[in-house]
Amino acid sequence: MSQAQTLHAINMGIDTHEEPVVYMRRDCDVCRAEGFTANARVQVSAGRHHIIATLNIVAGDLLPESSAGLSSSAWHYLQLHDGDPLAITHAPVVRSLRYLRKKIHGHELCAEEIAAIIGDIGRRLYSDVEVASFLTACAGDRLSIDEVIELTRAMVAVGTRLSWPDYPFVYDKHCVGGLPGNRTTPIVIAIASAAGLVIPKTSSRAITSPAGTADTMEVLTEVDLPLESMQRVVHETGACLVWGGRINLSPTDDLLIRIEKALDIDSDGQLVASVLSKKIAAGSTHILIDIPVGPTAKVRDRAHAERLSTMFATVATALGVKVHCVLTDGSQTIGYGIGPVEEARDVLAVLNNDPAAPADLAERACLLASHLLSMASGRDEAKSLSEARNILQSGRAWQQFERICLAQGGLKSLPEATHTTTLKARATGTLQGTDNRRLAQLAKLAGAPNSPVSGLRLAVKLGADVESGQALARLFAATGGELDYALNYYRRNRDMFEIG
Amino acid sequence: MSQAQTLHAINMGIDTHEEPVVYMRRDCDVCRAEGFTANARVQVSAGRHHIIATLNIVAGDLLPESSAGLSSSAWHYLQLHDGDPLAITHAPVVRSLRYLRKKIHGHELCAEEIAAIIGDIGRRLYSDVEVASFLTACAGDRLSIDEVIELTRAMVAVGTRLSWPDYPFVYDKHCVGGLPGNRTTPIVIAIASAAGLVIPKTSSRAITSPAGTADTMEVLTEVDLPLESMQRVVHETGACLVWGGRINLSPTDDLLIRIEKALDIDSDGQLVASVLSKKIAAGSTHILIDIPVGPTAKVRDRAHAERLSTMFATVATALGVKVHCVLTDGSQTIGYGIGPVEEARDVLAVLNNDPAAPADLAERACLLASHLLSMASGRDEAKSLSEARNILQSGRAWQQFERICLAQGGLKSLPEATHTTTLKARATGTLQGTDNRRLAQLAKLAGAPNSPVSGLRLAVKLGADVESGQALARLFAATGGELDYALNYYRRNRDMFEIG
Repeated sequence: MSQAQTLHAINMGIDTHEEPVVYMRRDCDVCRAEGFTANARVQVSAGRHHIIATLNIVAGDLLPESSAGLSSSAWHYLQLHDGDPLAITHAPVVRSLRYLRKKIHGHELCAEEIAAIIGDIGRRLYSDVEVASFLTACAGDRLSIDEVIELTRAMVAVGTRLSWPDYPFVYDKHCVGGLPGNRTTPIVIAIASAAGLVIPKTSSRAITSPAGTADTMEVLTEVDLPLESMQRVVHETGACLVWGGRINLSPTDDLLIRIEKALDIDSDGQLVASVLSKKIAAGSTHILIDIPVGPTAKVRDRAHAERLSTMFATVATALGVKVHCVLTDGSQTIGYGIGPVEEARDVLAVLNNDPAAPADLAERACLLASHLLSMASGRDEAKSLSEARNILQSGRAWQQFERICLAQGGLKSLPEATHTTTLKARATGTLQGTDNRRLAQLAKLAGAPNSPVSGLRLAVKLGADVESGQALARLFAATGGELDYALNYYRRNRDMFEIG
Repeated sequence: MSQAQTLHAINMGIDTHEEPVVYMRRDCDVCRAEGFTANARVQVSAGRHHIIATLNIVAGDLLPESSAGLSSSAWHYLQLHDGDPLAITHAPVVRSLRYLRKKIHGHELCAEEIAAIIGDIGRRLYSDVEVASFLTACAGDRLSIDEVIELTRAMVAVGTRLSWPDYPFVYDKHCVGGLPGNRTTPIVIAIASAAGLVIPKTSSRAITSPAGTADTMEVLTEVDLPLESMQRVVHETGACLVWGGRINLSPTDDLLIRIEKALDIDSDGQLVASVLSKKIAAGSTHILIDIPVGPTAKVRDRAHAERLSTMFATVATALGVKVHCVLTDGSQTIGYGIGPVEEARDVLAVLNNDPAAPADLAERACLLASHLLSMASGRDEAKSLSEARNILQSGRAWQQFERICLAQGGLKSLPEATHTTTLKARATGTLQGTDNRRLAQLAKLAGAPNSPVSGLRLAVKLGADVESGQALARLFAATGGELDYALNYYRRNRDMFEIG
């Protein structure tokens, strides 16, 4: 490798999201000596820190001589100060890309090959295009069960792994998603920890949905807790409801999720590896998986749900943890709210036993909590279900939820959306069905989850009789542009509410 | 859609290669009204032109208020002048992405779905990540033969389609590649057109190799000809050797190739669709395909070559053209040069019947030309082979090549590399094998094809006895950085020359 010449760092103040970009003058010595061309992948080194970045070449007047500019993310990863010396060279050949190509061509990968790919993605050596290709090559049914096991193991190995020496059993729950508004987790965690289970819940932000549990919890309390605070909350309350990204559990998963989100895909093998790697890295020993099944949910039929359950069980056994999957009704949204703030309203109403609270959400949360209680006690589910209901109805779940939020930094009051409109029925009849995917798309177009107030509040549920002109839902957005954008989509997709 | 506010265009002078980027201030009204976040996909409209671009958000001081900056490619596609008014809105939902997801999940696509995807890629509505996903979902053996036929048809339908009303039969040849230095095309075209065949050759630049025919021809003459000039050259000489990208034949293919190059993949279905769409759009009726077969060539065994031949023949028949595939020896490089300039030296030596010319290149070119002559005349290949050799040895091929180059703008003299070193044997023995893939990688690391002088000149061929310290090859680069970079790779991969 040639002796890299020194350039001085300048923060360009350009936000390229997570993709690190370096800006160099076309006439700079390093560009010319190295023969760099636009969009080349280059290695940028500053002291002990190295990143691979995409090169953008700039005309002279944007940068002084002997300097190189960095995007906000590159500046952050390299922990730079103005004028710091940089060495910029060709990116090293990423050896695991040969295994990626092997997978692209349809061959099965062994443990070492998968570990090499996941390690290199974790070190941010892959470009977005390469990560997209890896995800696609693993999508559909293109991962063997052995590959899913090794993918999970490799993802656990990158990043932090928690242990809970004080607790022999550590519980967790996860919903595979695809059902907008299905925000049972805060309620389930409150019930299960009120019953004495240790359940330190780390949640993700939304992948392809209008809100993840972390997005919803963030409007209620602090979720961005460092590891020590999270551990303190668990020791104080037996539980927590925090954002997993901060804890650096399975950080490769976060890099994969960003591109899955851009592609709007989420395949079985990746899903199992993503969920179990996060749970195992979090130190869980017993994991409940909620799989909603319905024609427009992520899992559309029972056969698919059973394949997915088998994959979860097989991978969990190989990695030494216990998993129990529950197939639940995914035919319609749960609760009334879709989007972080609207879902938080439903959660609060259920925990407070508000008479107007969505009964389906309360019932679903008790059902899931009962499965956790049965996993712990070995008792039958009918007994566990009445115990769960009792904890909720007695107010003990709400007291426990308040304790958790207070330990995390306090309960926040919910903001209101500034732009809102009513979606009205154009026909009289019975609400026969709702298209979950398009309801989710509508909430996302309105700005959820980046803008937490954005989303929907449904006014009717399946089977309701509606009259022409009656409200079907309220649509919320933080900006007029987003409201218009979502409405424009709604007008072309009114049949997401099927009235017959 | 909301009424878009007007911003004024500023050329940022940032070269992001082909990916269009728009830069907006975080505090600008449009960003806030639309709720844009970094890396959002936005539609930028200026007069009649619209593009989809990636949004980068900048700090205040890089841009004046009420302005938006454009990358060089975005500036070019929108044909802007300083201060032109722009409207920037959320990118419309790209409907064909649902078909992409269907393909990602392993389902077969119908004609309309493939046409929608290819049309949207052609309109530049796909991000690089989405194109990478499409290519990966179609890689390996994931395209059915019907899908390859529809992909080819869809790619022909986007862009220019030439017709040659004066000629009943129009010939073409193509090598599927994977064999560095295999630069037969200029020689084959000279021989075939000297024999009276009409053969208007449009070539691509390198996809994953150190040089494409267009890269090699560009060091010898003008290849970037507008359509009218290309047609004039064909009417004057019966042939041409131009870059196909300028003619806008199957432009979607060029967009796909850019990402294939980044991923270093080139699958059978995409290969057949890419080659045949270009040839059919160029108006060819008879197409010869050279498939080199060898352990380190793109096609490694006879069975794969035969599958590929069958795919070419089936797709060609469905689209109404004739294809003849020739399986050739791909066990080692052809000629001595690898890289645009070094390959051009070999071509000139063969056409000039130079005694030092590589005999293997001359022989391979005559073999391929003979297959074209047999396709045209129906005569047996032995007769055609002696006719082809006669045209080459008599100097008629050289005269014809000169005519073509003069018609295209004149013959250039070849530049010399400024940085060069000798790769020497470290053992005494016989050269048992060369690894074509790693030789190609070495030439690419030295800067080929972007820097045309970069590459290799082999000093020995398979079966040669070599002594320790003897030269195996010369390595050329335009910059010291690239020479060092390639040498560094060579030192870790000396066994690309197998001496035993």
